[in-house]
Amino acid sequence: MTAAYDPNNIFAKILRGEIPSHKICEDDESFAFMDIMPRGPGHSLVIPKKPARNILDVDPTSLAAVMRTVQKVGRAAMKAFDAQGLTVQQFNEVEGGQVVFHLHFHVMPRFAGIALKPPAGPMESPEVLAENAARIKAALEKS
Amino acid sequence: MTAAYDPNNIFAKILRGEIPSHKICEDDESFAFMDIMPRGPGHSLVIPKKPARNILDVDPTSLAAVMRTVQKVGRAAMKAFDAQGLTVQQFNEVEGGQVVFHLHFHVMPRFAGIALKPPAGPMESPEVLAENAARIKAALEKS
Repeated sequence: MTAAYDPNNIFAKILRGEIPSHKICEDDESFAFMDIMPRGPGHSLVIPKKPARNILDVDPTSLAAVMRTVQKVGRAAMKAFDAQGLTVQQFNEVEGGQVVFHLHFHVMPRFAGIALKPPAGPMESPEVLAENAARIKAALEKS
Repeated sequence: MTAAYDPNNIFAKILRGEIPSHKICEDDESFAFMDIMPRGPGHSLVIPKKPARNILDVDPTSLAAVMRTVQKVGRAAMKAFDAQGLTVQQFNEVEGGQVVFHLHFHVMPRFAGIALKPPAGPMESPEVLAENAARIKAALEKS
């Protein structure tokens, strides 16, 4: 049903260290980093290390590991940004909203009365992204 | 951080059989059924059987089981509705968009050029929901 995995997608390059990212954490199976076009403060992405185009082809064990990290990073991001809610989104194929074809979960802290910004908005500055990654990392280490 | 689980939420009542639902499938740990206010054709929900308010408090093993079902039901729903994409969303706490306080993943087939309808729209007729559940179930059985 889905196309083959393209090993030259941007998240694969991040995983290989060919492109820099604002990393929050990683374990054997998953990697979490800041979205460079955040829809709100603390918007991060969690991806599997093992190649997967999206939820349609991911290995269930790899998906389970990603979700453990989504949970941990989500809790930490809420603490770090004093958020009251959390929205998790995951898009599959172009028609489903997917832009980068390596499975990723959007983890977005939410605040009373504040809507998410539209997707694919302006790029955040590297300084802010680095500071936000550090805030979430610090909250993770305290948890 | 989060409030306690309320065993009288509507999905807990569905799991106990106190309220009817348009069931797609279930296993020991998860349950899938049609959203009664669908944002598009074939919009379903996948929930854990074990009580969990949302992603912030769910047991990781239970979450892994839910995600296996999200994947299966998502693939089947795409086939059943001849969809080109799939959008997965999960909301936590009121500020994160959560309305029913039992963890649930929205699994929504997507079609070229067709946006999702706004959340909390009109209720779908029981006849359509039953037919759509049957279509996804048939695709699941063929897979």
